Amino acid sequence: MADDPTSAEDRLIAKHFAPLATHPGALGLSDDAAFIKPPAGCDLVLKTDAIIGGVHFFNDDAAHTVASKALRVNLSDLAAKGAKPLGFLLSLALPKETNDAWLADFANGLRGDAVLFSCPLFGGDTDRTPGPATITIAMFGAVPEGTMVRRAGAKPGDLVFVSGTIGDAALGLLLRRGDADWKLEPAQRQRLISRYLLPLPRNALAEAVRTHASASMDVSDGLVGDLAKLCRVSQVAADIDVARVPQSAAAKAAIAHDAALLETALTGGDDYEILCTVPLGKADSFRAAAQAANVPVTKIGIIEEGEGARFRDAQGQELAFRRASFSHF
Amino acid sequence: MADDPTSAEDRLIAKHFAPLATHPGALGLSDDAAFIKPPAGCDLVLKTDAIIGGVHFFNDDAAHTVASKALRVNLSDLAAKGAKPLGFLLSLALPKETNDAWLADFANGLRGDAVLFSCPLFGGDTDRTPGPATITIAMFGAVPEGTMVRRAGAKPGDLVFVSGTIGDAALGLLLRRGDADWKLEPAQRQRLISRYLLPLPRNALAEAVRTHASASMDVSDGLVGDLAKLCRVSQVAADIDVARVPQSAAAKAAIAHDAALLETALTGGDDYEILCTVPLGKADSFRAAAQAANVPVTKIGIIEEGEGARFRDAQGQELAFRRASFSHF
Repeated sequence: MADDPTSAEDRLIAKHFAPLATHPGALGLSDDAAFIKPPAGCDLVLKTDAIIGGVHFFNDDAAHTVASKALRVNLSDLAAKGAKPLGFLLSLALPKETNDAWLADFANGLRGDAVLFSCPLFGGDTDRTPGPATITIAMFGAVPEGTMVRRAGAKPGDLVFVSGTIGDAALGLLLRRGDADWKLEPAQRQRLISRYLLPLPRNALAEAVRTHASASMDVSDGLVGDLAKLCRVSQVAADIDVARVPQSAAAKAAIAHDAALLETALTGGDDYEILCTVPLGKADSFRAAAQAANVPVTKIGIIEEGEGARFRDAQGQELAFRRASFSHF
Repeated sequence: MADDPTSAEDRLIAKHFAPLATHPGALGLSDDAAFIKPPAGCDLVLKTDAIIGGVHFFNDDAAHTVASKALRVNLSDLAAKGAKPLGFLLSLALPKETNDAWLADFANGLRGDAVLFSCPLFGGDTDRTPGPATITIAMFGAVPEGTMVRRAGAKPGDLVFVSGTIGDAALGLLLRRGDADWKLEPAQRQRLISRYLLPLPRNALAEAVRTHASASMDVSDGLVGDLAKLCRVSQVAADIDVARVPQSAAAKAAIAHDAALLETALTGGDDYEILCTVPLGKADSFRAAAQAANVPVTKIGIIEEGEGARFRDAQGQELAFRRASFSHF
């Protein structure tokens, strides 16, 4: 007879992660799989995204921000699709030097966001890896049947909106790396870095997007490249007024110091804002719904016939970018 | 304007993975998320499991077997839960030296199993990693509402069954590592190694399990430790006759050469067989359903009141194991 049927892996799960598995179908993480009853009349929206130490976060970032980032990059996709979160699966590959304090902090971060976004842990998997910490989330959401907002669907005449501000995270990454200074105030510097460390997904805007947008996606690989993708699958062009692209005071200060940072802001990625197109007749209603949800949205341009996304400056000149968007490959 | 709105990452996905995304809700992998309409009257069964180069497979294993293994370790859990596969999400973290030929072979392996197990790709994520290749699958299945077979549910008097044979993969791993020889015939040697390389999940048995078993799990961390887990959550004991535990001719030959390998076979893991308990009155019907599904099942013992799983030899002596099951931690 085996003296102790609980392995170290079982104990780790029971201690740190079982308390997060509040959904009854998660069976307290004591089974091979979880089960959920899908909400009636809904489609399920499915998304997976991983974050990797040294690639998507710094290995010395606080564990709770790593956990939050892993969840939030996935929650951002649900928001852009107009979906309400249901819950998630977690696959965790950890280097052997990971200690209990790191895990406790990680689980705390996960717990906080699971509550904040009404998104419980359904199940998971833990492994040792000889590589960096790798956190993979599979996220589940729901929309009324047939209503998931797609990237395809933008029509000539639709207005182009973005939520929040663009470029903070890309500038924050340069600051976090120590590559730059730009003579910012400490508070501005901190604001940009924190936007890189911790995305603020716009799930509060999901219902407004679902009921108004003709096309939508989240801005994760840079506004310029992501809008180009939306235009491509929608088979339309976009005409964007760069002066209208919303920037935080901190980003404005950095760009005032070095004008070349405008390109970083527009193409750099990690914004986790919503980019969507709204038919002209629904624009006022969309603005009102966004205001009610307490999420700022800004009209930055218009959809036209043709192809490609043009970004024009105050003189009407089209900007050329060295690299449209972030890619790992 | 961005000259080429398709990044290298987009092209990689379009070339290798979009052809696998045959479900209409996968939108050809051209969107942020997928959507599926859940089957009416069903619960969704959710599972995630990752495999990591140097941990769960050898970095020089053929890419198509790596792909198959990643899918099959998850399919095995669905089978044990009595669930029918619906589809999966794939998260792929690849070292920078990964070339196009590896990806093409990987995608081929994935495509073959997606067809074989009626399990299309819903969506995914690709990243570069400074670590080893890491393949994470989130697998979705369905069961009629309320019928997922759990680990908890075994009752005193129930019979304990396993599918197939036990121990081949654990012995195959030792051979694959070059740690052993055991004077096996080449064909026997190959059989054990191939059982390690490529699990054969018992999805054909899922419906028989769902309609007969009181408790079920797949054997992935070793029969001894996994049965102990099932007993613990079911709050019962098990009495197992080791002589009845089914072994392949190759495993028998290895154990005949070195009796200590019996422990490896019983505790080593990677079997991906089904371990389930069946009420006495349903046992004949279960055997008939398994035969109809063309999956061998063997009665290896009985559930009793108490706690712990006892493995007894032909003389009725209880075996003691150095390590009950595999754990990464």
